[in-house]
Formats: sequence, C-alpha cells, structure tokens
Amino acid sequence: MAQMYTLTGSRVEQTEVTVCCIGGGSRDWAMTLINDLARCTVLEGEVRLYDVDHESARQNERLGTQVQQRTEAVGNWTYEAVETMADALDGADFVLLSTQDPPAETMTHDLDIPAECGLYQPVGDTVGPGGTVRAMRAIPQYREIAAGIRENCPDAWVLNFTNPMSVVTRTLYEEFPGVNAVGICHEIYHAKEYLATLVEDHFDAEALTGDDIAVDVGGINHFTWFTDIRWQGRDVSPAIDREIERQRPLPGGFEPGDLDDASVFVNNHQVAFDLYERFGVFPSAGDRHLVEFVPWYLDLDDPRDVQRWGIRMTPSSYRTAHWPDREATRQAYLDGNERFEFTDSGEELVDIMAALAGVQPLETNLNLPNDGQLPGVANGAVVETNALVTAGAVTPLVADELPPAVRSIVGTHVTNQETLVEAGFDGDTDLAFRAFLNDPQVVIQPDEAEQLFADLLEVQASYLDAWE
Amino acid sequence: MAQMYTLTGSRVEQTEVTVCCIGGGSRDWAMTLINDLARCTVLEGEVRLYDVDHESARQNERLGTQVQQRTEAVGNWTYEAVETMADALDGADFVLLSTQDPPAETMTHDLDIPAECGLYQPVGDTVGPGGTVRAMRAIPQYREIAAGIRENCPDAWVLNFTNPMSVVTRTLYEEFPGVNAVGICHEIYHAKEYLATLVEDHFDAEALTGDDIAVDVGGINHFTWFTDIRWQGRDVSPAIDREIERQRPLPGGFEPGDLDDASVFVNNHQVAFDLYERFGVFPSAGDRHLVEFVPWYLDLDDPRDVQRWGIRMTPSSYRTAHWPDREATRQAYLDGNERFEFTDSGEELVDIMAALAGVQPLETNLNLPNDGQLPGVANGAVVETNALVTAGAVTPLVADELPPAVRSIVGTHVTNQETLVEAGFDGDTDLAFRAFLNDPQVVIQPDEAEQLFADLLEVQASYLDAWE
Amino acid sequence: MAQMYTLTGSRVEQTEVTVCCIGGGSRDWAMTLINDLARCTVLEGEVRLYDVDHESARQNERLGTQVQQRTEAVGNWTYEAVETMADALDGADFVLLSTQDPPAETMTHDLDIPAECGLYQPVGDTVGPGGTVRAMRAIPQYREIAAGIRENCPDAWVLNFTNPMSVVTRTLYEEFPGVNAVGICHEIYHAKEYLATLVEDHFDAEALTGDDIAVDVGGINHFTWFTDIRWQGRDVSPAIDREIERQRPLPGGFEPGDLDDASVFVNNHQVAFDLYERFGVFPSAGDRHLVEFVPWYLDLDDPRDVQRWGIRMTPSSYRTAHWPDREATRQAYLDGNERFEFTDSGEELVDIMAALAGVQPLETNLNLPNDGQLPGVANGAVVETNALVTAGAVTPLVADELPPAVRSIVGTHVTNQETLVEAGFDGDTDLAFRAFLNDPQVVIQPDEAEQLFADLLEVQASYLDAWE
Amino acid sequence: MAQMYTLTGSRVEQTEVTVCCIGGGSRDWAMTLINDLARCTVLEGEVRLYDVDHESARQNERLGTQVQQRTEAVGNWTYEAVETMADALDGADFVLLSTQDPPAETMTHDLDIPAECGLYQPVGDTVGPGGTVRAMRAIPQYREIAAGIRENCPDAWVLNFTNPMSVVTRTLYEEFPGVNAVGICHEIYHAKEYLATLVEDHFDAEALTGDDIAVDVGGINHFTWFTDIRWQGRDVSPAIDREIERQRPLPGGFEPGDLDDASVFVNNHQVAFDLYERFGVFPSAGDRHLVEFVPWYLDLDDPRDVQRWGIRMTPSSYRTAHWPDREATRQAYLDGNERFEFTDSGEELVDIMAALAGVQPLETNLNLPNDGQLPGVANGAVVETNALVTAGAVTPLVADELPPAVRSIVGTHVTNQETLVEAGFDGDTDLAFRAFLNDPQVVIQPDEAEQLFADLLEVQASYLDAWE
Repeated sequence: MAQMYTLTGSRVEQTEVTVCCIGGGSRDWAMTLINDLARCTVLEGEVRLYDVDHESARQNERLGTQVQQRTEAVGNWTYEAVETMADALDGADFVLLSTQDPPAETMTHDLDIPAECGLYQPVGDTVGPGGTVRAMRAIPQYREIAAGIRENCPDAWVLNFTNPMSVVTRTLYEEFPGVNAVGICHEIYHAKEYLATLVEDHFDAEALTGDDIAVDVGGINHFTWFTDIRWQGRDVSPAIDREIERQRPLPGGFEPGDLDDASVFVNNHQVAFDLYERFGVFPSAGDRHLVEFVPWYLDLDDPRDVQRWGIRMTPSSYRTAHWPDREATRQAYLDGNERFEFTDSGEELVDIMAALAGVQPLETNLNLPNDGQLPGVANGAVVETNALVTAGAVTPLVADELPPAVRSIVGTHVTNQETLVEAGFDGDTDLAFRAFLNDPQVVIQPDEAEQLFADLLEVQASYLDAWE
Repeated sequence: MAQMYTLTGSRVEQTEVTVCCIGGGSRDWAMTLINDLARCTVLEGEVRLYDVDHESARQNERLGTQVQQRTEAVGNWTYEAVETMADALDGADFVLLSTQDPPAETMTHDLDIPAECGLYQPVGDTVGPGGTVRAMRAIPQYREIAAGIRENCPDAWVLNFTNPMSVVTRTLYEEFPGVNAVGICHEIYHAKEYLATLVEDHFDAEALTGDDIAVDVGGINHFTWFTDIRWQGRDVSPAIDREIERQRPLPGGFEPGDLDDASVFVNNHQVAFDLYERFGVFPSAGDRHLVEFVPWYLDLDDPRDVQRWGIRMTPSSYRTAHWPDREATRQAYLDGNERFEFTDSGEELVDIMAALAGVQPLETNLNLPNDGQLPGVANGAVVETNALVTAGAVTPLVADELPPAVRSIVGTHVTNQETLVEAGFDGDTDLAFRAFLNDPQVVIQPDEAEQLFADLLEVQASYLDAWE
Repeated sequence: MAQMYTLTGSRVEQTEVTVCCIGGGSRDWAMTLINDLARCTVLEGEVRLYDVDHESARQNERLGTQVQQRTEAVGNWTYEAVETMADALDGADFVLLSTQDPPAETMTHDLDIPAECGLYQPVGDTVGPGGTVRAMRAIPQYREIAAGIRENCPDAWVLNFTNPMSVVTRTLYEEFPGVNAVGICHEIYHAKEYLATLVEDHFDAEALTGDDIAVDVGGINHFTWFTDIRWQGRDVSPAIDREIERQRPLPGGFEPGDLDDASVFVNNHQVAFDLYERFGVFPSAGDRHLVEFVPWYLDLDDPRDVQRWGIRMTPSSYRTAHWPDREATRQAYLDGNERFEFTDSGEELVDIMAALAGVQPLETNLNLPNDGQLPGVANGAVVETNALVTAGAVTPLVADELPPAVRSIVGTHVTNQETLVEAGFDGDTDLAFRAFLNDPQVVIQPDEAEQLFADLLEVQASYLDAWE
Repeated sequence: MAQMYTLTGSRVEQTEVTVCCIGGGSRDWAMTLINDLARCTVLEGEVRLYDVDHESARQNERLGTQVQQRTEAVGNWTYEAVETMADALDGADFVLLSTQDPPAETMTHDLDIPAECGLYQPVGDTVGPGGTVRAMRAIPQYREIAAGIRENCPDAWVLNFTNPMSVVTRTLYEEFPGVNAVGICHEIYHAKEYLATLVEDHFDAEALTGDDIAVDVGGINHFTWFTDIRWQGRDVSPAIDREIERQRPLPGGFEPGDLDDASVFVNNHQVAFDLYERFGVFPSAGDRHLVEFVPWYLDLDDPRDVQRWGIRMTPSSYRTAHWPDREATRQAYLDGNERFEFTDSGEELVDIMAALAGVQPLETNLNLPNDGQLPGVANGAVVETNALVTAGAVTPLVADELPPAVRSIVGTHVTNQETLVEAGFDGDTDLAFRAFLNDPQVVIQPDEAEQLFADLLEVQASYLDAWE
C-alpha cells in the first residue's frame, strides 16, 4: 500500500491498493464486489481476477471495466483477469477468497446421496455429510492458495468468504501460520437486522437497522450465539421474550405445505426461538444452518416435515440452476440488455479493507483462530467472535463463555473440523471418516455411514485427488 | 481402625474395621459381600446394614450371621441391621454404597416410556433417557448420604457401587468435597478376561486370567477405553486384529432372531470391535453399555435389530422380575431350603479395603474426580482410570489422552453429568432437561423430547420430590 | 441513567448521570475531576463526595460548586458532600474510587522501614514490601466498598483509580462477583506519548500525540508490555532501535549525582530500553515502577546508585509533604487567593463515562479480571490489556502472549496478588507473609524478612484491624 | 529382551538384557553399577561401556570383569568397552546415562566466577549460574545421544542420572519424542530416610527405613516437595512439628564456624524446616540444593554465613580433587591393592530395570515430562513425581497441587529450563541469557549479569561449540 498516508497523518487522497480475487470468475459474488468497490470513496487501485475458469474471470474483467465507466463509480479501479495464481497474488495488499466447485458435479451429490439414507440437509455446506465432503474438497485447494500467498504476498490481508468457513480459514493458518487471514460472513448481520425489527415492535423505537444492535457473539461459523444483546445499552431480551409469547404456540407451529411455495431461504426464526428457550442464549445464524449442527430438527421421516420449523430444504436442483441463472444475468449486463443497478449490498468487505488501510476502525464479527477469545474452546480452532479492525491489525474481543451444553456441541464440531484439517494434510480418508461419523447429523448404523461416505467420495473422486 | 498395625510395622493380627453398608437390605449384592468378607483372611470386624427397607436389612443381618457360623468363614464378622443412617455411619472405617430404587416403580418406566418414542435402551442405567432420570433420582439421595458421612464419619473410605456411577460419585464430592470416595465397577475386569482369551487364542499362551492383562485405561464409567494393552509387556493388539479377521465379515453379522433365546447380558464384542476399528482404541465396557453412549447403534426401527450387533435389549420385565427372584433365593438360604455356596466372586471390594488398611498395595481401575489423570477432560468430573491403592490413600495414574473423536463424545457426557449434578443441587428441572436433550441417544424433535421428559418425571414423581 | 436517549436513538440532550466519588475529599485527584467534568459537553448531573475525612469532602463540594459558576464550565453539575457511604452510593450510575491512607502514618513507613534492611523502593505502592503492606490495608477497605455497591447500586459502573490497582480491583470482584468494575491508570498513555516523540525523531513525522500510537498491550498494572507498536499501521520498533543506538553506551550510563536535583518522577527510559533489549518487548510502565517488579535494578548498596538508570527514589519526605502542599492549593482556590485554571488533564475518565453512556465507543487499556485476554496468565487475576468501551459494556481485547520469561515474572506477581486477596478475606497474616516473601524485591534472609514484615505491620497496626 | 518369560507367565530363568552405559568410563558411578548388577538375582546379560574417554571405559571393563569373578557376584554379566556410541547403543534394552565434563575445566569455573560477583552456590549443578551453564554444555551432548538412541535402539528404556536432570531429560524428549526415558535421582530417598528417623524419635517406632515412609511427592528435580507423608497410613507431620519444637530456636541457629570441619555434604534440615514452616509442605531435596532455587538463603556477604543454616558450600577444590581420588581407588581395585567391597548401594537402578523387565512392579519417584501428573505446571516440562513401573511401562501418579507460592517458584524454574532447551536447539545464546537472568539467584545489576554470563561462556568455550 504505497503512500497510504501523508506524513502529517491526515489522509489527502484515496489509498491505492492491489486486490487479488481468487475465484475471480464468480458468477455471483464478483458482481457484489464490483458494485461495492465502485461506490467506495476511500480506496482505489487494481483488481486482479484469478479463476480456474479463466474465461469467466475475463467476463468479470469486462464487467468491472464497464461498470467503472459509469458516473456512479466514484472510485478509480482497474480490473484484469490473470492467468496464473502466482501472478494474481504477486505483491497484493488484499487477497479475497471466494470459490465454489461446480454444484452439478459436487453439491448436488452432497445433498442427494445422504437423503437416500434419510439424512436431509437444508444447506449442506458447513457440517453434516455435505459440509464434511465439501471440506474434503476445499482443504487441498486452500493449502495451495495459502502456499501461494506465502510465496507471493506473505503480508497481504486475506479475506475469506468460502465455505465451509471454519475449515477453509483453519487450512490457511495450518499451511502458513504467518498468514493474515480472517473469515467474513454476513449471517450474523441478518440476525441483528431481525432483532432490530423486534426492538421496533416491542420497544417504542423505529427506523432501526442491524447496526443499532450491539451484541456479544461467540461460536463457530453458522453456529454462533448472542450471549448479550443491547440496543442503546439496553437489554433486548425482553423484546425476544415478548415476540415468542406473541407467536405462541411455539415451536414448530407451521403446517406441512405452508412453505411449499416459499423461498428456499425462508427463515421464520422458529428454530432460533426454540434453541433460545432451551439454552438461554440466542442463536445468531439462520435456522437453515442451525438445524444442521444439532441432531433434533432433522430427525425426519419426510423432508417436508422440517417445514413445521418455518424453513425449507434447499433442493439440489436449486443449486444446479443457480449458476446458469447468474451467468445469464452477467451476460445481459455485458451485452447491454440489462442495466447494472448499483445497490447498497450490506456486505462489510470494503469497510474492513478500509479499516485495515487505516481509514476508520471497525468492530465486527470475524472468524479467527482461537487465541483466548472464546473461552472453553480449543486453542487454534477457528471461531467466530467480535473483533476490532484497525490500521494493519485485527484483534479479537473476548466473548462470554457459552453455556455448557452449547459449548459441548460447539466442541464436537470443533473436534471434527480439526480432525478434517489434520486428515486433509495427511490425505487420510480413514481419519476424515472419524469426523464424518462423529457429526451429529450422522445417526445411522456405522456400516451404513461407512457406505454412504464411500459413495460420496466415489461420485466426486475427481475433486478428491489429494486423498488416499 | 483401631490398632491396625503393631508398632514394629509388622501385622500380628487381622485388622479390625467397622463397615457400614448403605443399601444393606440389598437382595443381590449383599450376598456377594457376605461371601467375600467371610473368606477374607486379613480383615475382621463389624458390619452395619442400613436400608430404607429395614426389614430387608434385618434379613441380611440374619443371613450374614448364619454364614459366619459356617466353618468356611475364616474372618470374624458380626452383622447388625441399624435403624438410622446416622447410627450406621457413626465412626465407620468403610462405607459401602449400593442402592437401587424398586425397579417396578422406576427402571421399568425408564425403559418403556422412551421406547414408545423409538428410543430403545439395552441397559438404561447410565446415560440416555433412563440414565438421566436415574441420575435425577439419585442425586438428592446421595447428597443426604454425603451429608451423613460428613457428620458421622468424615474420614471413612467410601466405596460406591451405585449407578449412574459417575453422577453418584460426583454428587458425593459436590456435597462434601473432603469425602474419601471412590467408585468401583467390575466392567473393565470382564474386558480383561475376554482379552486374556484372545491372547490364549492368538498368542501361544494358556490358562490366563484378566489379571494377566495390563492396560492403560481412561474414560468415564461404562464408556472406558484401553489405549494400551499388554501381556507380559507385549502389545496385545495383534491378537485383537487377528480375532477380527477371523470373524469377518464384521460388524453386525448376526441375524435377527439369532439371540432371541440368549441371556439378556449376552455380549459378542461386535460393538467393541467396530469402535476399535473406527477409533483405534479398544473399548473396555460391554457392548450393551457402549451403544448407549453414541447415536449410531440404537438408530433402530425395531428393537430386535440391535441383535445384529450380538446383544439384546434387557427388557423391563427382566428388571421387575429380578428382585423377587433374588429375594426368594435369600429366603431359601435363611430357611435352610438351600445351602449358601461360597464362591470366588471376582469382586475387588475386599482387596481394596485391605489395601487401604495397609495390607497390600493394589493397582486397579477406579472412578475419581479428574485431577489431571485424564488429559483433555474437565477437571473435577468423575472419570475412570487406573489408580494405586495404598495404606490410607488412593492415587490416580495418568492415563493416555484419548483420540479426539472419543474425547469429544466423552466430553459431551461429562458436560451432561456436570449439568445434572448442578441441576440436582438447585432442583432445577429445566437445567436437567438441557442434559436430557443433549444426550446422544435423544435424536427426536425437541418438543417431543420435552414431552417425553415430562412423562418420565410425572410417572415417578414420588421419587423426585427434591426437584421443582 | 434516566432518559439517556430519545426513542429515535438520536441524543437530544446531555445525559444526566449520578456520580459517586469514594475518596471524595481527595486533595489532589478531586481537582482533576472537577476540571474534567466542567469541560465535558456530553454528560451532566450530580456528584456525591464521600470521604472518611468528611470535612475535606465538604471543601471539595465548595470547590466544585464554585468552579461550576465559571463560564468555562459547560456542563451542568452539582456537588454534594455526603456523610455516609451508603447515601453516597444509593442509585449511583458511576462510582469513582480513589483513596489513600495518610502518607505520614503509612506510606512513609512502607518506604523507610524496608530501606533499613537495604530494600530501597522508588515508589512502593504496587509490589515489594511497600506495595504488599499497602495491599493489606486496602483489601478490607475495598471489601466494604464492594459490599456497599452490591447493596446500593449493583449495576453502577465502578471506575477504580486506587493503588495497588490489581489487588484493589481484584478485591471488588472477589467480594461482589457481579460488580461492573474497571481499573484505570494513565501510566501507559505516558509511554505512548514518549513513543510518539521517538516516531517524530526517527521517522519523518511531526506534531504527534500518544493517540497516534496504536499498541497491543498486556501485563499487570505498572508492569505492562507493548508486544506490538504501530503508527499509521507501521511498525515503530525501528524508531526505538535507532534511539537506543543514538544513546549508546547504554544502559545505566548516568553518573551518581546526575539526578540529585531532578524531579522525583524523572524517567529517562533507560530501564525500559534495557528490558526491551533483554526480552524483546517494550515495557509500557515508567522505569520507577518497572524496577520494583524484578530483582536486578534494586540490588543496591547505596540508594543513590539507582540513578545510573536515570531515575530517583521518591523519598518518604516527599510523600509526607505532598498532602499539605495540595491542601494549601485547594484552600487558595477557595479563598480566592489563586484562580482555578482549567486544563486539558489528559485523563480518560470522562471519555470512559461517556462511552459507557453510549456517546462514543472508546478503545483504551483497562484493568479487568482475566477472562482469556492475557493468554498464559491465571484466569480471574486482574490484568491490564486493551478493551473496548461501548454503551453499557466493557469488552477486553485479546493481547499477544508475552515472552516466557516476562510471563513468568508476571505470574509470580499474580500469584502474590491472588495470595494477598485470599489472605485478606481470611485475615490470615501468615498467608500474606508468603506473598511478601515471594516478592522479587525481598532478597534477604527469611528470618530477617519475617522481622521486617512484623515491624511494618506493627507500626501501622491501626490500619490493619481486619488482620489477625 | 529375548524370551523374558515362559509362555505360562512364570519366570524360569534370569532375564537376559543388553545394557549400554553412556559415560561408561565414570570413575564413580560405574563402580556402584558394577556392584549392583553383580548382586542382582533376576537379570543378567551384557554391559557395554561407552565414554569419550575410552581408556577410562576400558578400565571399567576390566573392573567389571574382575568383580564378576568374585563368588558374591550372583548374576552373570559381561563387560565390554565399546569405541563408538552407535555400537554401544545398537539394539540395547537399557541405556544408562551418566556423564560429567571434567570438573577442573568446567564446574570449577561454574562455582568460582559467580562467587566473584557475590553469587555463592553450595552445589551449582542444577539451577543458578552454574546449573545454567552446565545445562548449556549438556543440551548439545544429549541431543546427540538422543539421536543415537533413535537410530540404534528406539525402544530401549533410557535411564538418566546426569544433571541438570530436568534439562537433560527434557532434551532427550525434545530431540526424540518417542524416547522411553526417565530421570532417576536418589535425593528423595534420603529425605524419606530422615523422616523415618523422626518417626522413630517422635512416634513409638523403631528400625524403620526410608521404605517405611509413604509420600506424595511433586516438583522438579532437587526442588521437590512432600504434600503428604504417611507411615503405615498415619500422618507423619506431627513428628516433624515436634522435631522443630525440640530444635527451637530455629531457623539458622548455627554459629559461623560450627561446620568448618564438617563434610561438604552436611545437611541439618534447617532449610527444609524453615521452608516447611513458611509454605506448609515439606521439601524433599537436601538443603544444599533447596537454597539454590530461592533467593533468600544465598543473600550473603560472606559465603561462610550460609553455615547458620547448617550447610556448607562445596568448594570447587573439592570437585577438582574428587576425580583423581576416585580414579586412584579404581586403580587400587584393579591392581589388587584394595579389595572391592560389595555394598547395599541403596540405588534403585536395578530394581527399576527389573520392574521394566516384568519381574516386580515398583512405585518410586521419577522425572518425566508432565502429562498431567503435576497440576498447574506446564505440560511437557520434566517434573518429578511418583510413578508406577511395570512390565514395559512407566506411568506417573497424579501428585497433589503444590501451594501457589511454591508453584510459582517451580514455574519460574520450569520457564527457565524450557527456555534453555529451546535456546540450545537453536544455539541461541541471547535466549539462554534470558533464562540466566531470570534465575532467582541472579540478583545483581543486569549489565553485571551479562558480563558474568559472557565470562562463564568464554572460559569454557571449548565445551560450548554448538552455541553461537
């Protein structure tokens, strides 16, 4: 970051930075990035797009360049698709990580094959059979990325968006302990937005946003918990309690079929309420994720039965269709058939980059190796808590200790994630199966589980070369 | 223990001790005690029998006195049924704890009600729905016993045989931190006996007993593991491996119906072998217990399906019928209709008492609060490892660390046990439900689990007065 | 804090708060408080002054009231001396703690009696013989204060300024675990100011203040360390290294007599440089404090020899004379003989109060029970690290782990402080002596140490009633 | 160990073992070994002697062979001096480690140079300036030995007798984590022997030996503590208390000159009594060692002043003269001028070897990496506690937690020892100096300490090649 500040300490110009995007051919997330950078007033510079699908990265180069020509684009950014990862990383200030294997060849199987054993997964990207196999695909890929960073830009700030978040971030640190990596996820912000509506409904307030809600947060990605929720210093739990009373009878009051036509992302907070009543702390991930971390809600004879909790399974067909849809949208922008609309994405990426560049400190939730910030959870495991982002530094804030039962569930997943990373570095499939079997969703006979695991690995063997 | 030794340090006579039996009306275990004491050559003294069923204690007083008149009875012991616990404990050197609530009113429900929700339990006395409710009954009872010990014989050695072993022993320490209590269980000895047969079969050895097998053992009662098994300093695992090969295909090779006529305690070590192959350490509890600690084997549509693992469910009817059977046997002894046969019980109780009295040091597995002996498991929780018993002291031996996945399962149960004890001391039923729900066997919808819990508590409400 | 915010979330008026000052008769610190509150634009309200010397509190009431009439006083504050602690605390929003026993009867002895044994102390208020006895006086006093807070204003924010900081703050939490207490000390800010001058000298910068320096700080009060020092994201250590080179030969290059006429607070950073070179992290307390935590610098035949390190002993005569001096100044203000001059005190007290009231978040260093923020140091011990102050919450930031040798010295003092608090709650003088003897300054024969300890306690026995 | 047992488990002959002695040219300890092996009835085999002074090893070969021809030699042993360490280790069952650098070139300086700075050391072989430099010499040597064991006999049992015990044993594990090494020291047995005399004097007992005293022991070598002492299950502390009363006034009641003619190893237990009274636990190392771990007793103007504690400094001249004395004795045996007298050495070496070979389990105190056996002390550091030695296994017994002040002193030394090992593996002299400076004996000005350290390294530079 050349010349980020003048000598007097006051900033006189936009800071010039080099940003490397791994997964730069993204049909989805890249458009958000192009949008957010264009609207950023404090940073400018060069964006390098790297992707195993180079052609897709080139499309994004074209889109980024085109968007920069719009008058709404206040920042000065250039976009370039780069052919090798090494060239893309070389001397970068920031490395953004967001990759996904083609759903039709991977995630579809992660969802459909376990379903044949009665193991239904609303998301399947973090834990459970699907999350476990996704981790197995990701670990070798992210070892290579971490090695590239060590080689080409060891001091860069690495901002990871790829799931399974905890395992991917942990892999970066395992391969390159000196890496400056954080895992970023918007899930918690959605919970804060919802709590803002509860405060509006039950306290006498209006026009609040998620930013008005202050929380103490702790857990692991997609299984995080608010141990303290405040609005203007005031405890928000009475608002939650009143909302639960208002919605009685809870939980699971939906009828089968109620949500047949709802969005696959529908969330009625019934699971969060249920867990809050049982454990005394409020979950800060969406219900679709939460149910995958505990064995109770997915004990289903029919996958539609999960709808009584106000959520739906996201079918594999949705995942398969999503890529072509988004690709069509991108093409429409490029062809001029559709006009790129600038939006307020709500993503914190650019704010975090600005904070690291010294513009403005920021407190937000981040995924980092545990160094004491989450008491009672293994050191070194990647956990999600609040952290303070300042010039050139990210420092975790100490979270409250979770209630013992919650901590024990977190501990089980942490053990599995650590086991997967260890297995991945050794290519040890047997060890990976220990994590697979120990997942709370895997409540089938052990020999059946072993067969399921074998089937999952076989069908996507080409993505698992690094494993024995 | 008056005058246990002469001043020169050499023992000149049998040591006189006072033994208090809580649960002294036992129809079962008391007969073993009477047998073992009668055959003991190094201790003698007074046995006080206390029971809430005083009449039954009187029967045992009669039986004990009668047995002592036999010539085979080498030790000099007197038996007395005592009406109050305080009188029974007063100044005792040893306190033996072995109590059980009437199965027809308690354990029967612990087994039958969860079965209606599809939760089948082979034993139901340690964890799972049955073990949890049994713990809830036991905690207030054992608080009272611990308080009695503190009052009447604070220096006594307290030897506990009551299940759930970990929770009961933990309760004693929570109520009276200065208590000298250990939990004793013969389960591990059975595993050593079985391994001795494997050594005979696969190494060139013969006439071995469980005592020939040296183990490093760690875990929690009924979910313990051998991390190292040696015979004469030689690693025994090849014998296990060969036995598994011999029995292939494993696991779960039994046909439904194979065991319909087997003993309810039948154990074919199929679960132990399966877990050994998956986690690399050999379980040292019986298969009927092991399956209750993990979710896989009890994921059953039909309870008979568990027979493919070589075990049977012990039906509640067996439990109900067992007491009257044993009572009839006792009566037959007393009436002279049947002759009391002295046996080699295999129980270590008298050896442990003798070691504590300074006769002969003893290494054996014991349940004790964790003070470092089981690495990676919460301090203070009751764990089972080897320990050295010497004159007036029990010292745990440091066990090997368990593999992460096993440690994580142990950790879940430890959390539940600690939660139950905390809940029991506060009478907090909601907190107890957290442990109930967090049990790996409880893989049903949370509201269903809540109803099940309520039903279990209601049907045995008279045993749960101390709870809100 | 009634009506701190309007319902829309935007503040429309100054927040009204009730502030209770224990030690409100202070001749020194109270004047800073009166100054800072008068200049505060975001808070207003009522200040209650409580002191065992009620007359002195009344003088401060008069002074505070008088200062509020000045036009420079932008905030609206009333001052009242209150006769009982309970009345002073009743319903307070903030409780400020700053007390000191009369130096002529206490601190004078803390310095002079050890000196007779060759134990010289530049300050004597934190550790060493003087700090230990000061802690023994303070513990019973602060138990009483904590009990008063629990009774009269359990939700108040308690801001402690009294030394020994760690022990006093720890005492508050030990007596009332629910207390919202933090310990505040300006020592670290001075180090940041000094480092700002080094950045000016060795980097090409100017007009910096301590606020321009960002640090990762960890340790215990008066023995804190910067593990990372940055200016605008840039590592500051080269500036320190260059300054050390510039000053060679170091360390201890001063001649005896060089500082005979210097301020008793003189600090030439020679000790900080020396420790930095030996342990690789920069101490963030003043040299006068640092030398008291380690045994090396105070191994002196003649107390003047400490001047080779650029510091002086603060003689007991200075301590004795300071109170009358400051009292005369206050009288001069009250009599109108001298005009109260408003200053920029540099204290963060009012900023912290404002942050807690929701005005503006603040990151600063604070003393808090260790909950994971200082890795490798005992949980619960009061440690000093950065923390984030927000509306109604103080959250510690995780500090870097200290180098082993430093952590070991910190650990010794933490043990002593925990021992003193335990001893104080039991009134156990023998236990307190263990801490006294284990202090690194106490390098005399054990029987001599015992006599010294007895002499110190005897001479100030009237301040040690609560001890056996 | 070929054919250690018959298949029936009963031993039918002496077990044949191969023993490798590193330091096999010893003028001192080798004679004890020859004596003990000759009298051993349960083991027999081959002893290989390796020494950097091969000629001295050959002398021991001759002596061993000669002793074996005596009729008192019941065991069948052959002795051979071997020229390379690899040959000596090749396939060994036991490796005995006992080496010492020539005192005239090393230990003499370790004692004399610090004394010039007023740092007097009664022993100087474990901690303090002398112990630190001794550690620096030993670490590279023992890395090499550990590497040799890994290469030539990875399963051998390695029994270490070399000081500094903790550092040397730790070095073996750091170089070769799989090593089966234990550190053996007779110091604690002496304390048990002394306590046996106290029991005889104050209880009504007679003819006791150290074996009659049962202890719970914890600490680090030469700074170990008895937290529990029993004779026949009875608490021994009243005997200690009565002895202290009998000896009043204590402590330090000796007159200067009282011990001028005493043995340099004289021990009157005055320091042990003093520490026992101050910390409540009884030290189990000799006074000459104890005073070196704490700063108080060695704060001396004149080294003779230490005699008030009933001990003497062992002068460097004694160390220098000892080797030639012992060498002369050996020569006298070899020449037939003096008759080798068989003795009961009291050393446990052969018993430990026999226990490992499966002959008879043994409980004794051993130095091992902390794996939980010493609560509150860093994992992995070498600590001394009780352990159980059985066929092919050494298992530590969990010790009581030490009192906080004692634990803090232990912690300081553990930090220093871990630092030294880390420094030794990196050859980092600066890091080693951190440990040197942090030693409680080093209470001199830091620059003076630095000079002292440099002088010590310079004078024995030829023994410190591996350091920068």
